[in-house]
Amino acid sequence: MDKLDAIFKPRSVAVIGASSTKGKVGHDIFANLLRGEFQGTLYPVNPGARSILCVPCYKSLRDIDDEIDLGMIILPPKAALEAVKDCVRKKVKGLVIVSAGFKEVGGEGAAIEEEIAEICRKADIRLIGPNCLGVINPCADVRLNASFSTHMPDYGNISFISQSGALCTSVLDFAQSRGFGFSKFVSIGNKADVDELDLLRYYHKDPDTHVIMIYMEALRMRPGLIGEVKYIVSGHRPTPILVIKSGKTVAGASAAASHTGSIAGTEAVYNAIFDASGIIRVDTVDALFDYAIAFVAGRIPEGNRVAIITNAGGPGIIATDMSEMSGLKLARFRRKTHEVLHRYLPPTANFNNPVDVIGDASSDRYRYALEAVIKDEGVDCVLMILTPQSMTDAIGTAKAIVSIYRETTKPIICCFMGVVDVSAGVKHLHENHVPVYSFPENAAKAMGKLYEATKWLTRKILPQYELTFEKERAADIVAQCLKDGKTVLGEYDGAELLKCYGFDLPPMEIAQSASDAVKIADRIGYPVVMKIASPQILHKSDAGGVALNLKNPEAVEKSFADIMKNAAAYDPDAQIDGVLVQKMAPPGQEVILGVSKDPGFGHLLMFGLGGIYVELFKNVTFRLAPIGRNNARRMITGIKGFEILTGFRGKPEADLEKLEKLLVSLSRMVMDNPQIKELDINPLLVHEKGRGATVADIIITFETGDQAEKTH
Amino acid sequence: MDKLDAIFKPRSVAVIGASSTKGKVGHDIFANLLRGEFQGTLYPVNPGARSILCVPCYKSLRDIDDEIDLGMIILPPKAALEAVKDCVRKKVKGLVIVSAGFKEVGGEGAAIEEEIAEICRKADIRLIGPNCLGVINPCADVRLNASFSTHMPDYGNISFISQSGALCTSVLDFAQSRGFGFSKFVSIGNKADVDELDLLRYYHKDPDTHVIMIYMEALRMRPGLIGEVKYIVSGHRPTPILVIKSGKTVAGASAAASHTGSIAGTEAVYNAIFDASGIIRVDTVDALFDYAIAFVAGRIPEGNRVAIITNAGGPGIIATDMSEMSGLKLARFRRKTHEVLHRYLPPTANFNNPVDVIGDASSDRYRYALEAVIKDEGVDCVLMILTPQSMTDAIGTAKAIVSIYRETTKPIICCFMGVVDVSAGVKHLHENHVPVYSFPENAAKAMGKLYEATKWLTRKILPQYELTFEKERAADIVAQCLKDGKTVLGEYDGAELLKCYGFDLPPMEIAQSASDAVKIADRIGYPVVMKIASPQILHKSDAGGVALNLKNPEAVEKSFADIMKNAAAYDPDAQIDGVLVQKMAPPGQEVILGVSKDPGFGHLLMFGLGGIYVELFKNVTFRLAPIGRNNARRMITGIKGFEILTGFRGKPEADLEKLEKLLVSLSRMVMDNPQIKELDINPLLVHEKGRGATVADIIITFETGDQAEKTH
Repeated sequence: MDKLDAIFKPRSVAVIGASSTKGKVGHDIFANLLRGEFQGTLYPVNPGARSILCVPCYKSLRDIDDEIDLGMIILPPKAALEAVKDCVRKKVKGLVIVSAGFKEVGGEGAAIEEEIAEICRKADIRLIGPNCLGVINPCADVRLNASFSTHMPDYGNISFISQSGALCTSVLDFAQSRGFGFSKFVSIGNKADVDELDLLRYYHKDPDTHVIMIYMEALRMRPGLIGEVKYIVSGHRPTPILVIKSGKTVAGASAAASHTGSIAGTEAVYNAIFDASGIIRVDTVDALFDYAIAFVAGRIPEGNRVAIITNAGGPGIIATDMSEMSGLKLARFRRKTHEVLHRYLPPTANFNNPVDVIGDASSDRYRYALEAVIKDEGVDCVLMILTPQSMTDAIGTAKAIVSIYRETTKPIICCFMGVVDVSAGVKHLHENHVPVYSFPENAAKAMGKLYEATKWLTRKILPQYELTFEKERAADIVAQCLKDGKTVLGEYDGAELLKCYGFDLPPMEIAQSASDAVKIADRIGYPVVMKIASPQILHKSDAGGVALNLKNPEAVEKSFADIMKNAAAYDPDAQIDGVLVQKMAPPGQEVILGVSKDPGFGHLLMFGLGGIYVELFKNVTFRLAPIGRNNARRMITGIKGFEILTGFRGKPEADLEKLEKLLVSLSRMVMDNPQIKELDINPLLVHEKGRGATVADIIITFETGDQAEKTH
Repeated sequence: MDKLDAIFKPRSVAVIGASSTKGKVGHDIFANLLRGEFQGTLYPVNPGARSILCVPCYKSLRDIDDEIDLGMIILPPKAALEAVKDCVRKKVKGLVIVSAGFKEVGGEGAAIEEEIAEICRKADIRLIGPNCLGVINPCADVRLNASFSTHMPDYGNISFISQSGALCTSVLDFAQSRGFGFSKFVSIGNKADVDELDLLRYYHKDPDTHVIMIYMEALRMRPGLIGEVKYIVSGHRPTPILVIKSGKTVAGASAAASHTGSIAGTEAVYNAIFDASGIIRVDTVDALFDYAIAFVAGRIPEGNRVAIITNAGGPGIIATDMSEMSGLKLARFRRKTHEVLHRYLPPTANFNNPVDVIGDASSDRYRYALEAVIKDEGVDCVLMILTPQSMTDAIGTAKAIVSIYRETTKPIICCFMGVVDVSAGVKHLHENHVPVYSFPENAAKAMGKLYEATKWLTRKILPQYELTFEKERAADIVAQCLKDGKTVLGEYDGAELLKCYGFDLPPMEIAQSASDAVKIADRIGYPVVMKIASPQILHKSDAGGVALNLKNPEAVEKSFADIMKNAAAYDPDAQIDGVLVQKMAPPGQEVILGVSKDPGFGHLLMFGLGGIYVELFKNVTFRLAPIGRNNARRMITGIKGFEILTGFRGKPEADLEKLEKLLVSLSRMVMDNPQIKELDINPLLVHEKGRGATVADIIITFETGDQAEKTH
């Protein structure tokens, strides 16, 4: 038995801090439990009350002569701490602390929260909260409404996790108005113990949960999280996860920080997590429910070929538009399908996709059209659109759809337009788990999302590359740098480290004098590039510290003098290590590889097109390290303007395989050497297919001791 | 009195083709008129019925001994034609033909439609339809439900124009369920006579119409349309226009074509029209209503500084995010505001924006917070968010909001979350015309749209440039080309035409031999560019017909031979006029100016960044000619990557003034010379500010006589 069962399916609940004063949280939650017809036993605990809502009240937990599965604690922090200790003594199996005043206010509250979490950990009791709305399980054999919400939602197959208690009540209301049901519903508050991953695991094992919705402010990163979520979403018994993540813009992030006392992670990190794990991010609550309706039916299309059946032209056009914009294609019907349609539909109908059964269609025409279309091998899914007109039979049409739906595995999504006339039909579809919407664009968008899930589930998984690295040498280099107090590496020092992980750099040496520079250039061969070597001068171009394409000794000699002069003028105090003389790299497509370390999430890898593209179009892709070949590939192909790497406008195809390998190598490098705080390879010149890539510039920053401690 | 008043506000209606058979259109429409409690007099006309729904029936129109304002015709095409003739004789003032079978089916139906339109034109009678749902005016002193819809919508201040009859019924149902009312509602069908512009003019003059909604499949272009619409949207008594335009994707467009028999215009043309005239385009019916709710209140914010007041953190964050994404900024409160908030809110509240009045807020806290915030000079608009919690007083809060709303001119948009608990509050807001939504993201998006309207209404209008052109010389050049049978002009011929409109081109001459080429190059100065001159070889680079940056006579001589050889190999049959020798243009930012002529809409001007950008990012802007300076400016600034022209990454600022002038000149050129079918200036090199721009290549295509006739 899962430990969380004590919280979601308790046989007995003690409400510690239950109150007889109406309007108090301790009263309302007890009342909600009682009136929600909890199927187990309820024990109100309050030293000052004889009974609460006529249920006999206990002075303390130890007076209860029964096993307690769930302890609901509604007490201020200090009292809550004592209650938790009592619960441990009483061997209560699970806890929910509703009250606020803990980590989110800081100070003593935060300290008490930590102490409570520690006690629960030692006693092996799972805890939800504090600072949460509570837990709901509407299933008929439990009927647990341990929450602020006066409404017990209907039973259904969606489970919900919310970080915001306040949003929960509105979501419950909204769900009720749209006829939605839930399997489990929880507000996780401060996550002193139980967090998203615990709940995702639990929901995934729950046969009543078909779709998971999350309202997320900040995710707690845990090792292996992405892999586990990927398994939940696409492994055995895939369970789609839909998330609204707030704190998107800068202002939103600061609002989130003041709200839950948690620092909202950056957008890039979250999108990287969602993209890598297969979580579907949505923007609005409307969309959350719109997509949940579609996913909860448990069908996804095999391909993207959609058939549309409508009794009105306009909505058919809208559905067509939105289908195409959502990644679907209009199916082309087989000859057989055309024949059947011609047989059963009037001559004024449209027999091509979208099929127009015409305004005066009765339910029979819909039935014939759907039967014909659903059998067509060229059709992966169907949108059924009904607008109420004088001859329209909404309930009859709904019945016809349901009976055909039961005989097929292809998804069918309905749009019964209007609200008043079609309500009986909508209800029938709903009761039979056929997704139904009020407008064609929502229906088509939802079908598009189902197809995205298909693409995710059937994505090509390529075998990993066999790559070997000089891990120990790299570790030695890093250790030596840190010992020497070098926290920022430029091209020359960084080169050795990168070479350990398979990066190619052009031959280079540091010259201390003009004649030295000429000797080096003669040795490595012209043309050469020269760059100032100074730990203080990172933006070398701005300092006039770079000379490109030097073709002869005279140019090298002159450039040495210029660079030294410019550098001295730019920063008279800079330590000058000399001038780097480097063989000019062969031409290639400029890209950027980057790393930055997030204190909560670890190393975030970045990929982008280089040069003017990255600045102008601000489009880069991210993944959290570690990544393998498949994520590397998706980072590359996910970039806007990716075509430029595939042989665009006469350019040769770039060496994408090498690029993939280098991204995997970079991931390994930062995992092996966690002291790396930031890294920029900008640009990496990717040569023609088969010719590799050359690093043209690098900056690597290490964490100082202080920072390293802070993040661990 | 407006002629359309006979249709929207008739005192008497003859229903020609009224029927006593339930389920027939002629019956249902008559029943809807009768049961809708039309405030005038109804005359059913049908030679075979004694009475319809107990109203005495007339054998023919001439038997009616009364003046008829509106004739509703529900008869197949041939009979409809006779009925129209009867109506003319009877001096009926306005007509609606509901029946289908006209232009949309082609053949005889189309011919009859044309004949009917001609008759109406001659008789000076306005006609709506055929193939439409009808006309509705719910105003208490009219109550005209001359439509298929069994529901008469509530009265309100939105007027609707739909090209799709079927969508109308669903929109009416949807509106009813959301408590929306309409002023006028019309389905325009085939637009044999009355079209969108007629109705926009009529609605604009209608004091009951505050917002206009259009569901558009294809717009009928008329001279001056853009200017008139701009006046409706932003002139005296601005009336916002929201449009859903379907037929967006290729598949959607073909569905639209099969639906109304009208060829759907291209996306580019429509977006150009909407952008230039200030029509707000939306994607979904949800959004149409969401924005209409906000606009119908008749307030727009002075600036983009929004204050948010909420009783729950989560929704506050969502509202903050969506506000920022919608172009708003969170207002920073003045010290005074902070003081007032501190006085009235509990210490646990958040006194910064978004203001959190905390979950247990009663209506008083909302009132104090809103009063303080609305007075703040740094606040342009307010979002009020209420989530139902135990202490929440939705109706009290709504009353407080309404009373403050009446005392201010700043927009306030509410989000009362949930449906069940807050319905009384929502109703009160609704009755008092305060916009209210169910979720914060919708509320914030709507506020963002209001601010877009502010930006549009307060946009900077710059005085036009004084430009002079050699119009007559240009006309002569065009005439000569057409006389000579030259329908495609390349660089050499096109140059003269462009120069007439102020374009600069580098000096150039055509060489017939290598020595000729050297002489020309010596004369115009090195470096030069050489290009094959052949009317058959348009893609000169592909043919190896271009040599760049030739610095001396030897290079010119060699290139002449190479180019001639390559051209002969590329197309042995091509007529070779020689090789163009051109002074190499000074460097500049590559942009593209283009024109293409649409048969229905005229010349469409295009602007984009040149080179790889246009191909990779496919982002260009369009306007229909003619344009002046302001639209030219918006074409340029509206481009993605516009920053590249403003001095980006060390590049100099481009000569934007010259670029604006050239776009205006191009517009003049195509208006003066309508024979121009296509034109591409690719690239135009825009030099540093003050240094102008140089045309580096051109292709101009003229219409042949046949094409020219077709389009006029």
